Formats: sequence, structure tokens, C-alpha cells
Amino acid sequence: MNFPSKLIEDAVAEISRLPGIGKKTALRLSLHLLKQDASVATSLAKAIIDLRTKTNYCKICHNLSDTEICPICGGHRRDHTVICVVEDIPDVLAIENTSQYNGLYHVLGGVISPIQGVGPENIHIDSLIARVERPHSGDPVREIILALPATMEGDTTSFYLSRKLKPTGTKISTIARGIPVGGELEFTDEVTLGRSILSRTNYSSE
Amino acid sequence: MNFPSKLIEDAVAEISRLPGIGKKTALRLSLHLLKQDASVATSLAKAIIDLRTKTNYCKICHNLSDTEICPICGGHRRDHTVICVVEDIPDVLAIENTSQYNGLYHVLGGVISPIQGVGPENIHIDSLIARVERPHSGDPVREIILALPATMEGDTTSFYLSRKLKPTGTKISTIARGIPVGGELEFTDEVTLGRSILSRTNYSSE
Repeated sequence: MNFPSKLIEDAVAEISRLPGIGKKTALRLSLHLLKQDASVATSLAKAIIDLRTKTNYCKICHNLSDTEICPICGGHRRDHTVICVVEDIPDVLAIENTSQYNGLYHVLGGVISPIQGVGPENIHIDSLIARVERPHSGDPVREIILALPATMEGDTTSFYLSRKLKPTGTKISTIARGIPVGGELEFTDEVTLGRSILSRTNYSSE
Repeated sequence: MNFPSKLIEDAVAEISRLPGIGKKTALRLSLHLLKQDASVATSLAKAIIDLRTKTNYCKICHNLSDTEICPICGGHRRDHTVICVVEDIPDVLAIENTSQYNGLYHVLGGVISPIQGVGPENIHIDSLIARVERPHSGDPVREIILALPATMEGDTTSFYLSRKLKPTGTKISTIARGIPVGGELEFTDEVTLGRSILSRTNYSSE
């Protein structure tokens, strides 16, 4: 595309560097910004810069936080004896939205992936071991829930963590893999269906 | 969604104001920016502000331009006796990409739409009449090509322009409406097919 202006060319180039946004979408967004009041563009730009330069991470669980210790880790109503280990920040949001969990989190910031050059030392594993050995709340950690993706990398990380955490004697669990709610058996892949049979639970009609 | 940080909440709110971007996409983009080098966020923000605050429009055709007169209107190799009238800036880019047109453009900046409160005085019609009556290049304008959308508003604008331009005696044409290249007759809507029969052209095997 030949752009009539260097400024719009730059804007399209920058916006299309974002994941999932191509040149055509970037052009559409740029032309939209041009038609809006100048305050729309300036407040968008300010939010982007503030996000990148002012954001802090919780010193305990590595989740995003405006304070040194996030509201979850500092919450008096949360169960400080359970820690749910997740890959990244959106996973915390997803689990919080279920309203089914009241413990703490630990954001690894990735999973072990030799292909992408991510080793155990590149993600927040040491601080997880330290949390279990010396709990911040004083109460011992009863359970570690591994809530990592159902991929080869996720499984590798779960296996590595279970080995590392074994000496602490803490109970280690993992979220259930099975047929999604509303899912049909005939359209479920055989690996998931096989796992759901092996991990069957007692039927409760309550 | 409950965000763990005010900064990410603000960023998601600002990004999701863009057309076609929802909260989930905005969150994904925000988290992407957080993982990148700070320069990615700052150069994106700079491009957005520069685009909105520094962009100029060509004084003749109202297309985007870094200079007072855009490269097309100032081009010595362009045919200054033909003006193609379009609704907006992307239309210029689209026609330029065909490499089939070597004349000038006139960007109306919209079409007449009584429902949306856009009247003839809200779009660049007066400057088009002035261009035809007093051509910048000195050469008289031979032809005006109306390349407006095939909608009610586009047709209304074309009709209005043809009436306004009639006194100048300039030839007025409109781009062909018909079956797209590669289109099947049976899947073409009846209005388009009807028009393509009425506007049939002499068959040339060259």
C-alpha cells in the first residue's frame, strides 16, 4: 500500500505490530482516530504508556498490582493455605470470574519450553518453593493446585513442579481434565475422552 | 471482569473504545504490550499522537498529506483534467492500488445522509465546484468521475453532484456497477444483475 502521508504510514506500521492486527485493520483504526476528537488519541496513548511504565507486579504472587502486595495476597477473606499455580495473568482473571476459588495464586509467567528456550530458571518457580517453605501469612500451605495448560509444555511444567515440591510434603493437585460442560461425547477427541474415563469420580445426585 | 490493576483497567477501557475491538482483545493487546520492551509501547503511543495532532490535509483534494498540496495534486505525470470524486481516504488508496487511474481525486469526507444529519454543506462539495470552475493547473477539467458507494446515500450524493456540476458543462461519469470479476450469475442479487444488463457494453475480444 502506498500511503499519502508518512504519519499515517508510521501509525499503521506501529499498530499492525500488535498481535492479530493486520495492515488493513491498522489503517481502519488510524482513520477512526483521525475522525475523533484529539482527546481520544491522547488518552489512548497515555493509557498505553502508563500501562507499560507504571505497572507493578505483586511481590508475592507476581500478578499485576497497583500496590506492592496485590489485593488477593493481602486479602483477609482469602484462604492463605491454598495456592493455585497458573501460567499467566489472564488465567487468574479467568479463575476469579468462576467465583469457585477463594485461595491465593502464583503466576509463573510462562511454562517450561525447551524449544522456545524457556527453562525452569526463567519462570517464577524459586519464589513458589520459597512461599511453600516460608509462608507469608505464617499458616502452612495445605495444598498446591496446578492449573497449567493441557499442552506438552504445561504437563512438563506440572511434572517438574511436582518433583520440586515433593520434599515439602504439601498436597499437590491438578485441575480436572474431561469433557467440557455441554460437550457431546461423539465430538470429543479420544485423548480427552480417555482421560475423562480414567479420572471418573463418584456420582453424586445432590 | 475484575482487573487486578487500575492501569490495565484503563488501558483495556481505552483500547476497547476502538471500533471492532472488544474487552477480551483489548486485554490480550495490553498483556502483549506489557511483555514487550518499553520502546514498543512508547513508539506506538507516539505514532498515535503524531497521527492525530500533526496530520495535514491537501488544500486541493482533502486527502491526507504531509505537505500543503499532496503528491497526487502536485504530480506532473498525473492527468490534471480528470477528477475522481470519492467518499473517503481509503477509497483513494483502493483506486491507486488498481494502477488503472492516473487523474486527480476529490475526497468528499462523507456522503449526504439526512438520517445521520449530513447535508451537502457538511462535505467538501463547494471546493469541488470551485476546482471545476477555476482549475489549479490552468487546464480545464474534462471529466468528473463519481466513484461513490452503491448505497442510497451514495446515489443521493451522486445525483446532487450531477445537478450541481451540470452548469459547468463538464462531462460527468460514474464507475461501472455490475457483476464482480469471478462472480457467478446465479449468486448475484437481482438489482446488480439487472443493472449489469441495462449497462451492457460492446463485446471486445481484444
